[in-house]
Order: sequence, then C-alpha cells, then structure tokens
Amino acid sequence: MGYSLRLLDVLRSLHAEEGDTVLVKDTGREYRGILMPHHEFSDPDVVVIKLKSGYNVGVKTGPGTTIEIVSKVQPKERKPHHMHPAKDKKTVAVLGTGGTIASYVDYRTGAVHPALSADDLVAAVPEIGDICNVRSEVIFSIFSENMTVDHWQKLAGAVADRLNGGVDGCIIPHGTDTMGYTSAAMSFMLEGLTKPVVLVGAQRSSDRPSTDAHTNLVSSARFIVESDAAGVYVLMHETSSDTAAAVHLGTKVRKMHTSRRDAFHSVNCSPVARISFEGGIEYLAEHHKRSEGKVRLRDGMDANVALLQFYPGMSPAAFESVLTSHHGVVIAGSGLGHVSKDMVTAIGKAIEAGTKVVMTSQCLYGRVNLNVYNTGRDLITAGVISGEDMLPETAYVKLMWVLGQTSNDGEIRRLMITDLRGEITERREIDD
Amino acid sequence: MGYSLRLLDVLRSLHAEEGDTVLVKDTGREYRGILMPHHEFSDPDVVVIKLKSGYNVGVKTGPGTTIEIVSKVQPKERKPHHMHPAKDKKTVAVLGTGGTIASYVDYRTGAVHPALSADDLVAAVPEIGDICNVRSEVIFSIFSENMTVDHWQKLAGAVADRLNGGVDGCIIPHGTDTMGYTSAAMSFMLEGLTKPVVLVGAQRSSDRPSTDAHTNLVSSARFIVESDAAGVYVLMHETSSDTAAAVHLGTKVRKMHTSRRDAFHSVNCSPVARISFEGGIEYLAEHHKRSEGKVRLRDGMDANVALLQFYPGMSPAAFESVLTSHHGVVIAGSGLGHVSKDMVTAIGKAIEAGTKVVMTSQCLYGRVNLNVYNTGRDLITAGVISGEDMLPETAYVKLMWVLGQTSNDGEIRRLMITDLRGEITERREIDD
Repeated sequence: MGYSLRLLDVLRSLHAEEGDTVLVKDTGREYRGILMPHHEFSDPDVVVIKLKSGYNVGVKTGPGTTIEIVSKVQPKERKPHHMHPAKDKKTVAVLGTGGTIASYVDYRTGAVHPALSADDLVAAVPEIGDICNVRSEVIFSIFSENMTVDHWQKLAGAVADRLNGGVDGCIIPHGTDTMGYTSAAMSFMLEGLTKPVVLVGAQRSSDRPSTDAHTNLVSSARFIVESDAAGVYVLMHETSSDTAAAVHLGTKVRKMHTSRRDAFHSVNCSPVARISFEGGIEYLAEHHKRSEGKVRLRDGMDANVALLQFYPGMSPAAFESVLTSHHGVVIAGSGLGHVSKDMVTAIGKAIEAGTKVVMTSQCLYGRVNLNVYNTGRDLITAGVISGEDMLPETAYVKLMWVLGQTSNDGEIRRLMITDLRGEITERREIDD
Repeated sequence: MGYSLRLLDVLRSLHAEEGDTVLVKDTGREYRGILMPHHEFSDPDVVVIKLKSGYNVGVKTGPGTTIEIVSKVQPKERKPHHMHPAKDKKTVAVLGTGGTIASYVDYRTGAVHPALSADDLVAAVPEIGDICNVRSEVIFSIFSENMTVDHWQKLAGAVADRLNGGVDGCIIPHGTDTMGYTSAAMSFMLEGLTKPVVLVGAQRSSDRPSTDAHTNLVSSARFIVESDAAGVYVLMHETSSDTAAAVHLGTKVRKMHTSRRDAFHSVNCSPVARISFEGGIEYLAEHHKRSEGKVRLRDGMDANVALLQFYPGMSPAAFESVLTSHHGVVIAGSGLGHVSKDMVTAIGKAIEAGTKVVMTSQCLYGRVNLNVYNTGRDLITAGVISGEDMLPETAYVKLMWVLGQTSNDGEIRRLMITDLRGEITERREIDD
C-alpha cells in the first residue's frame, strides 16, 4: 500500500508481512525490527520498522538496500474482550477515521503518519477492555483536512448501523483539525439519538511522552459507560495539565489552539461535563439523557456551500463567482455580523440569483444582531439569514444539511434560525 | 449632508444650522429640541433632534411636515483647553474616524448612528481636558467595516503629521468591528514610532448607561500622559466589570466577542498594560519605550490581497479565480496550517502564477508549523510562506504592506517571516 513498484517487488518476493521481524541493510547501516504498516502518504521508498527500543524508524531504500526476513509474525489474539464479550459490560463501537490519535511519529523525519488501525489503537490502550466490550473497525484513515461530505455520510451511516445494531455508544477517533466540523455533521445527520457518540482526538501522537491519546480514549469509554448523556460530543483535555477531560456539545465546539492538548473549547456555552482522570464525572450543563429508540439517519447534504470571512478591503468583484456559484454561503462578518457597503450589494445580488446567505461573526463569541446598525438592517433587507450565536463552522455544516433536506425557501430560513441540535443557545442578558 | 433634496431645500430656506432650537410638527405630533448633525447613513428624510430630556429623536419628515426655527444657536467656546493650551500639560491629538465611540442611539429606531464629531466627543468627556491639552479633528466618519487601504493611508498620514508636528501622542477613536485590522495597518505604516498611538473604541454608545466610551477615552489619555510606551496600541475594557482597561499591542489584538465590553484580547501574548480606573498603570509585558525622533511614514500597500478560511469540502474550482486574481492570499488553515490535498494543488498553481500565499491558522491561538505533517511539507514545497504565530488578520494587513514595499520574491518572504512590529512572537516551549 503506497510503496514504490521497486520496493513492492522486493517485499513481495520475500513474502514479507506487517509484523515480520526484518533486517534492513544500507550503505554501512543496519536496522532490525518489526515491519510496520506503510501509509499512502509516506515516501514510497521508505520501509517503517519498529526497533526494539519501541521507536519507529523510516528507512529510505534504494537499489543498494537489502532486506531479509529474520522471523515471521506470529498470529496472535489481540482482542480477547472483542472475541469473548463479557455480558456484564456495555459494548462500545470504536470507528477509526485517522488522525493523530491513530498515528505514529516517523523518527527519521519527525513527521507524523496516520498508520495505526482502530484495532492497534484499542490494543495500545488495554484499559479500555476493562471498561467495556470493544468492537473496533476502521471506517477510513485520512488526515482530517481531507474530510468531505462523502466521508461524513459514510461515518454517520456506520454510527447509525452500529447503534441500531445494539452497541451502547460509539467512539470516533478523529483528526483534531476538522473534528469540530465532523461533530457538527454527525449532530445533524443523526436524528433522535438516544445514545452517546463521542469524537475524540489527540494533539500529541501516542508514542510521545506527552501524548493525550490514552487518557482521551479511556475517558471517552468511561463517558459512554458511566454517564447518562445521549447525543454527539467531542472529548479532549480540559486543561494543559493531565487532570481531566472536557466533554463538549458537538455543535458548540471549536479548536482554538494549534498544539495545546486543551485546544478545544465550548463557544457560547459551558462544556457538558468534566471527567476526572482519577474517577468521577461532573456535569457542567444540562444535557440530553439516554432513552430507548433507534436513531434516524438523515444524511442528505448539499456539498455546494462555502464559508467566507469578511475583511475590510474585501473585493466584491473577486468574490462574485464564489457567491453565485454556491447554493449557500456562510459569512463570518465583523462584529455583530457586518460587511462593507459594497459587499452588502454583492450579497444582495447573489441572494436574488438564488444563493442562501447566512451571517455569523468572526468574533466567534457572542451573537449576531442585524438590528443594531444600518449595515445589519441593509443585510436583512437583502435577505440574509441570521446565524444567531452559531459558530461559523457549525453554520456552514448546518446550511449544507438544511439544503440537503429541503428546497423550500421559508423552510430553509426557519430551520436555520431554529435550534435543532443545541447549535443555537438562548439569548443571555449578560451579553447585551 | 445626506439629506433628501426636499428636506435640504426646507432647511436651507430656513437658514437652519446644527445647534438651532427647532420645532417640528407632523400629523398631530410636535418635537422641540436642538437640531443635531445628520449622518450620511441616516434616512435622508429624517431630522435628528436632541430633546430637553437629553434623548435624541429622529423625526421622519414628509411634504406635510413643518419646521420652524425657535432660536438660533449661540456661538460658544467649547474647547478652552484647545484654544489656551496649558504649557505644563502634554498635548494629544484626537483623530476621529467614526464608530460606536463617536455615535449616538436613534431612540425612534433603536439604531446606532455615527454622528458625534471628535470635538463633540472630547466635549462630552471633559475629564480629558484635565489630563492633557487636546487637539481634536475628524479625519473621516465611517462604520469601520467600510475601512479601506485609502482610509488607512489617510489616517496614517494624519498621525505622522501630528506626531512630527509636536503632539505627544495620538488617540484614534475607531469602530470596534475592524479596529484590529486598522491597528495592524497603523503599526506597519508608521515606522520608528517614538510616541504612543492609541486606538480606542466602545462597545456601547456614549448615551447608554453601560457605555464604555468615557472610561476608554480617559484611559487612553492617561496611557499617553502617564506611561513610557511608544508604538501602536488598542485600548479597551479588560473585564466585563468597570475596573480597568487593557492595552494591547496593535499587531496581536483581536475582537473576540460581538457585544461584551471586554471583547478585545491579546492573542499569543499578554496585554502590554492594565490601566486601573482608580489610578495606576501596571505593565504586563515588555514594551517599546519612548524616545526622540520623527516617525517615518511608509504607507505603501497593495490592496489586491485576500484572506480565506479553509474548511473541509472547500472547492478548489470555486476559489481558483480568487487565488489567481489577487497578488497575495492569506489562508487561515486548519490546525498547524493545513488545507485539503486538492487545495494544496490549487494553491501550488496560484503560486506558480505569481500569487504570494501565506499560511496562518483558524485556531487563532498557537503557531503554524508546516513541518509536522505531510500536508504541511507539501505546502512548503508548493512555496507557501509560514505565518508563524501571526493572527490571520494581521498577516493579511502585513502582506498588503509588504507587497507595497517590495516586489522582490526573496525580500517578500524574508519580511513576512521576520518580526517587524511585534506581530511574530518567539516560540515558547510550553506550546510544543
């Protein structure tokens, strides 16, 4: 998978399998270790070997490199908790999608590769087997920036199938880059959820000392087993220290730091719960309770939607085709939801031509209010729909979903300003 | 100014002036009060009158409306501190640009209008006259979302002129929507600043009980008079209570809430200072000290730059013309600075065609690092310039400025990754 034809020929002629112990010799160097999975994004001439030290090394091979099999991989039983489920434990489906949480560092290049399967992931965190019965599988394995509506639909379909098939909850290991977008997509696509679906990521890969992969995975399993919450959630470290995880509502959460482990924050509401790593769950906000009933999959989405941030000096001419070529556009305006005069005109033209335009704020925190300034009222006159206190990213996902559910103008507007999955919170006087 | 031709004719025939006491009669209603300035954005048929109660009312006039002059405005001396400057006080230029801080609420419609002149503004806050000699003038009066490079150049020119003419500092009352963009523009355009330039706004207009206009203006004057700091700063409430203002570096500040008075936050660094409303300045970070020397105006900017937020599902085809029609594009990527595979391809093509592309992060907090994942390295290979820990908005303004200074490829790249005005902070281990 992803190897160069030359290297693939060498490995095939050896009947090499992942897990085999191999010896790689190259111009004065030798590497002995276990042959690891090769990911589509890795250099096609590199073989990845897990050394005895536990570190992975990527060795660039060439015509002068020799590879020998030292010993063959032994078939092993890696998931006794899966094969022999305990009847007194809840059962959780782990649906892998890729990302840092399911990745390893290539110590030659320092690069992080998504390579571990969901099985590997669960096997690496044996504590999960003590908490619940695990059914792990890989739905796909990609960097989360490459996520599309197709991936969301495939994932939502798998979640609905497993939940309606009887598991008590789903854990979705996911790349953190776009985890907030996917959690919003799952929130809208999965209607009437009576069980928890927890997206979980890691900011540091599992073979780094500071990894948050283990604690986040274990906390996700604990949240499903110990809490009474139903719905779509994102679980990540609450603080930069190793003390607790925060559980965020899937429609109100945003990645607010490039690298910190506590990068995810609930915006315009409190996190739902705090899970202490020493035990115990503390609820911080009201939440939907678990009940009986099948989840309804409503995965229709119109992918032809754009998200634009307004900025002073934005050229209406340059963005005319973006505004008119999409069925929907979410704008992250300035302040209470503003754009420049000439952008108001351009937006009005796009709306006349049939584009649905929703206004949110690039401030992220607070609520759009188009009634305070003339600019806002001009936008209302032009037909812009208020995004209320939705995150721009959530409004983007919601608009795709709404346009996938109905083509009726009034219904599109009604759905966008109605709270469906906790994405719009009530006005609070303190912010006025 | 901004009146309908019909209303203008009526007012001219009366020789009506702002400040005159007038009586407006309309179908059974009478309004008596002082004729107030009419702003270009107001309804052209509305006259604004300040009632005896102090409230402003906008009266929509028609052919049936009559207007009488009750008494003429008395010429008055409103700025003794300006006409007779005290020699023992510092002199501060107040350069009005519009915005909520220089606005009033139209109680008929509830709308906020930018209407007060810089003189009115200073007259409304007489405490400023006790702190310093004030030279106030209106550079322009607009909603800040309508700010363009032309406005920035006009403003920077005025600041340089007044500072080099001898004032000790400048206060720039500004709309909060795009104040962070303007403070970045002033930071780059004004080179070698030896005095303070303080942009100040208000989230609540000055005739509302919860207004922050007064405290922010007074604190700005105090910061110029009492502190030893030189450079471009933004001053706003530090917390939601009325206790202190925070002074932020002009290149590291962002509006993070639509309506709270403490909406502005320093991102990836600490505010420079805290100004207690009860007295005293506490420094929170190192800052440039005042010295002698003229400021150099370097106001060249290439306005043909765009700012784009990446999102999963972003269509390369839809954004192809945006990427190639601009001389520069700043992208707010996901996480450490990522975009989808097909956007990497589209960006590479645009760079080949001559567009300069700078990568920042939509996380806002933290630092871009294109060396961790393959996506980042592909972007480096494509020629993308790292925005380090710059805010997307600051990187947008800086790229316009850099492209206005040089057309040399290597120099553009060097300037973008070099800290010029505090916009790039050093790597901190805690974030790694």
